[in-house]
Amino acid sequence: MTETELESLIRLFARLPGFGKRSARRVVLHLIKKKESLLVPLAQSIQNVIEHIRTCPVCGNLDSCSPCHICQDQRRDKTVLCVVQDVADLWAIERSAAFKGKYHVLGGLLSAIEGIGPDELRLPVLENRIRQQEVSEIILALPATVDGQTTGHYIIERFKKLPVKISSLAQGIPVGGELDYLDDGTIQTALKARR
Amino acid sequence: MTETELESLIRLFARLPGFGKRSARRVVLHLIKKKESLLVPLAQSIQNVIEHIRTCPVCGNLDSCSPCHICQDQRRDKTVLCVVQDVADLWAIERSAAFKGKYHVLGGLLSAIEGIGPDELRLPVLENRIRQQEVSEIILALPATVDGQTTGHYIIERFKKLPVKISSLAQGIPVGGELDYLDDGTIQTALKARR
Repeated sequence: MTETELESLIRLFARLPGFGKRSARRVVLHLIKKKESLLVPLAQSIQNVIEHIRTCPVCGNLDSCSPCHICQDQRRDKTVLCVVQDVADLWAIERSAAFKGKYHVLGGLLSAIEGIGPDELRLPVLENRIRQQEVSEIILALPATVDGQTTGHYIIERFKKLPVKISSLAQGIPVGGELDYLDDGTIQTALKARR
Repeated sequence: MTETELESLIRLFARLPGFGKRSARRVVLHLIKKKESLLVPLAQSIQNVIEHIRTCPVCGNLDSCSPCHICQDQRRDKTVLCVVQDVADLWAIERSAAFKGKYHVLGGLLSAIEGIGPDELRLPVLENRIRQQEVSEIILALPATVDGQTTGHYIIERFKKLPVKISSLAQGIPVGGELDYLDDGTIQTALKARR
């Protein structure tokens, strides 16, 4: 039997992160039940994203304008760059509304296991930005994982001769965090970095 | 700020069952990363489903042909109808490959709380099928919930004067089920229905 339209859609949904065959079937049936209110708008919205969303050549953000609206925003401080792993992290920092500089999305982390070196990331672009624009400070907002810390150290080493200040996000107890539920590493780090 | 193409797509994904804002963002970013291999095929596949998939006017299944391929299949026994709540249940029985008759999808269950009566379901269509076609047996494959059992009893009452045999799926211990992990109700039912 050739694959039907429904089976093909279920197979595609099953490839999304967090999805299996069962949840894909469930979502596809839900979509068909809500054809006019959900399936048709979804098709239109996906088409819009395919046609309009591009990676910003400057910072690596996703947007319909190029450069992206953050890079174009004259009110933001272009002398401070926040370096993040990917666009999801950029969005997380934007939601916090705590940063008014510009961003640089690496598009991943250095990883010996996965064979990702500096040239697979957007590090050469970052170096160009530091050399050519008036960047005076870099804030590393990388995950507190082995790969995240390795990438941070690499960036500090690589750019230490350039006239740019490099800092990292503070590590410690998350706001609202109960000590009892935190892992030992977090408590040790928070103790060492006490103020 | 007006909603961007990305925000609009994330909002639609967040309305799918099992999704929240966070998982919707994750899926949308994943789709954009795999634009050619996943996002574009998904758009095409959704378009195909919108254009081709229809509810079968006979049994209520979803298919690109009308009547559906199960209703058209001459090798299947048209004297036996399996009554299910929705298309997902029809698919589950088809996967088991244990049933070679035809189906009737109710499109829901009777529910006093949600105000769903017999005419909201495809029960009049079922009555017509029994009266007009050579249906000699109905198998109720409804969920073992209060609404499922209520709907089953209603169907038995409604059709008891028609020349049709009505049976239900057996209840008992699922295959591979450990007694220790089963709820009391299942064990009681399995004991009462012992063979």
